[in-house]
Amino acid sequence: MIELTKEYIENLKGIISEKDDAKIKETLDELYPADIAELYQELNLQEAIYLYLLMDGEKAADVLMELDEEDRHKLLKELPNELIAKRFVDNMETDDAVDLMRELDEDTQEEILSHIEDVEQAGDIVDLLKYDEDTAGGLMGTEMIVVNENWSMPKCIDEMRKQAEDMDEIYYVYVVDDDERLRGVLQLQKLITNPSVSKIKHVMKKDPISVRDSDSIEEVTETIEKYDLVALPVVDSIGRLVGRITIDDVMDEVREQHERDYQLASGISQDVETSDNVFTQTAARLPWLLIGMIGGIGNSLILGNFEGNFAVNPKMALFIPLIGGTGGNVGIQSSAIVVQGLANNSLKEGNIVPQILKEAVVSLINASIISLVVFIYNFFMLGDRAITASVSLSLFAVVMFASIFGTLVPMTLDKLKIDPALATGPFITITNDIIGMMIYMFISSTLAG
Amino acid sequence: MIELTKEYIENLKGIISEKDDAKIKETLDELYPADIAELYQELNLQEAIYLYLLMDGEKAADVLMELDEEDRHKLLKELPNELIAKRFVDNMETDDAVDLMRELDEDTQEEILSHIEDVEQAGDIVDLLKYDEDTAGGLMGTEMIVVNENWSMPKCIDEMRKQAEDMDEIYYVYVVDDDERLRGVLQLQKLITNPSVSKIKHVMKKDPISVRDSDSIEEVTETIEKYDLVALPVVDSIGRLVGRITIDDVMDEVREQHERDYQLASGISQDVETSDNVFTQTAARLPWLLIGMIGGIGNSLILGNFEGNFAVNPKMALFIPLIGGTGGNVGIQSSAIVVQGLANNSLKEGNIVPQILKEAVVSLINASIISLVVFIYNFFMLGDRAITASVSLSLFAVVMFASIFGTLVPMTLDKLKIDPALATGPFITITNDIIGMMIYMFISSTLAG
Repeated sequence: MIELTKEYIENLKGIISEKDDAKIKETLDELYPADIAELYQELNLQEAIYLYLLMDGEKAADVLMELDEEDRHKLLKELPNELIAKRFVDNMETDDAVDLMRELDEDTQEEILSHIEDVEQAGDIVDLLKYDEDTAGGLMGTEMIVVNENWSMPKCIDEMRKQAEDMDEIYYVYVVDDDERLRGVLQLQKLITNPSVSKIKHVMKKDPISVRDSDSIEEVTETIEKYDLVALPVVDSIGRLVGRITIDDVMDEVREQHERDYQLASGISQDVETSDNVFTQTAARLPWLLIGMIGGIGNSLILGNFEGNFAVNPKMALFIPLIGGTGGNVGIQSSAIVVQGLANNSLKEGNIVPQILKEAVVSLINASIISLVVFIYNFFMLGDRAITASVSLSLFAVVMFASIFGTLVPMTLDKLKIDPALATGPFITITNDIIGMMIYMFISSTLAG
Repeated sequence: MIELTKEYIENLKGIISEKDDAKIKETLDELYPADIAELYQELNLQEAIYLYLLMDGEKAADVLMELDEEDRHKLLKELPNELIAKRFVDNMETDDAVDLMRELDEDTQEEILSHIEDVEQAGDIVDLLKYDEDTAGGLMGTEMIVVNENWSMPKCIDEMRKQAEDMDEIYYVYVVDDDERLRGVLQLQKLITNPSVSKIKHVMKKDPISVRDSDSIEEVTETIEKYDLVALPVVDSIGRLVGRITIDDVMDEVREQHERDYQLASGISQDVETSDNVFTQTAARLPWLLIGMIGGIGNSLILGNFEGNFAVNPKMALFIPLIGGTGGNVGIQSSAIVVQGLANNSLKEGNIVPQILKEAVVSLINASIISLVVFIYNFFMLGDRAITASVSLSLFAVVMFASIFGTLVPMTLDKLKIDPALATGPFITITNDIIGMMIYMFISSTLAG
């Protein structure tokens, strides 16, 4: 493995500027596609294009898919569509090709498809593009080794030899019947341990785990994680094998899902990276800040009704941050536990009522402890019985409310098939802040007004 | 694939109560270990143990590792250590065996090791237990196919046939030199495409991607994700092949890391599941609530210094939630972007100054917009110029401070090799809330006091 040190990069830039093609090719041969993609960030567009045109098609295609979407588009813009078709799309695995095509507009898609020389590849891409992006069909590729259950092992090996040639890695061999229906999986070690079996079906693993082409990506990631698979066959409505999904794509999906949840919980409304420009970052962050601002103004209107009380008893104002903050903290905890439970399937549909009951007990303990501690503190330090009582009563009510609310909202969203993670973060904080103010003002103006 | 419907489970419970061993075995044969583990939750301990003793050793071992840690321990407690050794540990992959051993106390570990019949297996487990749990060595297993670079393909296939017998799945064959140093990887399709090559080293992939046994788990997950691998060889300090890490273990690590980050950001201080009991949940959630409570009391002390101002101008109190809430929202956004950037490596060490500058520009835009909107609103609606000016000035200052603070704290923690995710969630909200109150009180008491 080669480390991309500063010297290494300087050296490479030197070779590029000398246009020493032989040496550049030698260097590129040593590097993995993911490393070349990393290198790309250190090069200017001209240097990058120069490098690209020296790579063989398959490597160039791999590098292209390892780039950030933004960098990929910069590069593609500089290249004629015919070259994109012949150098990249023709050499890609079909699932990558489909991902790439989905990033382009329809005209470009069609032009590129018309330039693909391998008709089978073009046909597969067109077929795959018909699937919804968020389904197993939208994630799968068609590169796989398929054999018939009635073949003998030597015939299989012969056939595999033909099919395997333009394939990168093979983990499983899928076995189908005469109607193309998935019947089994052949582990590669059987090639060695049973080299002369008369029918594949005698050594294959029957009833393999598979997904439907219309299954959601969540079902795909769940299945592959649950059964510890590295690839998953995809079948159509009548059980015919139509493709396979590999674990690297599933891992990317899992990471994206996690990042999305994390960002939603942090009040960032669209996928954003540290490398994104100022405008993108602002656009991702301003919406929740504005909603928070509206919430804050709403709070000022609620509190405005009690201006007179503040004038008479200004101590009432001192505990506004405590009440609001505690409500927010409790609400976020509760909603995060639900969102995570739904995401990792530990929270099942039938468990809703027990979960709320358990949440109520946990909140009861937390609410009692916090209210009591604050009560003791205020009793000795504040010297105002009415406020002391109002603050602890309000805290108790706010913690109970915030936790039940924080549990119910994501559960309800999930039932309505809306992403429950939407209900975390600023939404919960802001809502609990407002309700908390109402509760506090009502109780304190009654007791201390 | 079989669905675990209610009827299916009722039916199975019936067979168990009838002790119809033949039928139970038949049923178990149809199910994958992950399904049997799921089934376990529907059975009582006696039923579960009954099932376990009917499974063959390898399946029983797989099922055991698919169970929750809590369920696993309940089951193990009921079984003699000798049986655990012979049925489970002897039949497990070494990495799973080590995971299991780490969950047990030292006496039990030793007793189990003494009962393992396969001395090589016991030796491997003892060796693996020496590695730190958070390193590649702690995650790896020793099951792999290893061949010598100077062997011919037929000799290789012969050797692989011997080694492959007790192996579940084979994805790569590792190639070493005479000193056991890792030299290459042999893709399984080469067995088919080059069946008679005279030396493996002519067809192997040279310079394979590997990790050191002392590398951190983060390095392992990064490497396996970057290069889209399904297994990763592990070498020692002089390059000898000592083990391999499979992608299913890496995926588990990635998920755990994400869940930890998400929980830290939500103010949950230890790994907690919806299924955990009330006490565990309270223990995980109370600490941050208490810290938030202390922050809230701190805020009441700050505001207490300005009691007189509230009495004179109660309007000052109305905007406390707006200032505190906005500071919290901004701070969480900023820290989340940094934590995520550090986690997915898009934020590199050298980028700290540019990142802070970019953050400052984004905040400048957000701060200006929010302050301006609130200014316009208050100008027309509030009828108090001093407060109107104070609120907008404070909002501006709070947004700027909160974003820079939210960026700097996780970056600093990362530099100090502390998990930056610790700085997200309640920590940022509470700190920004307090500083926000100070800024607001200082400005408003100066302008409106």
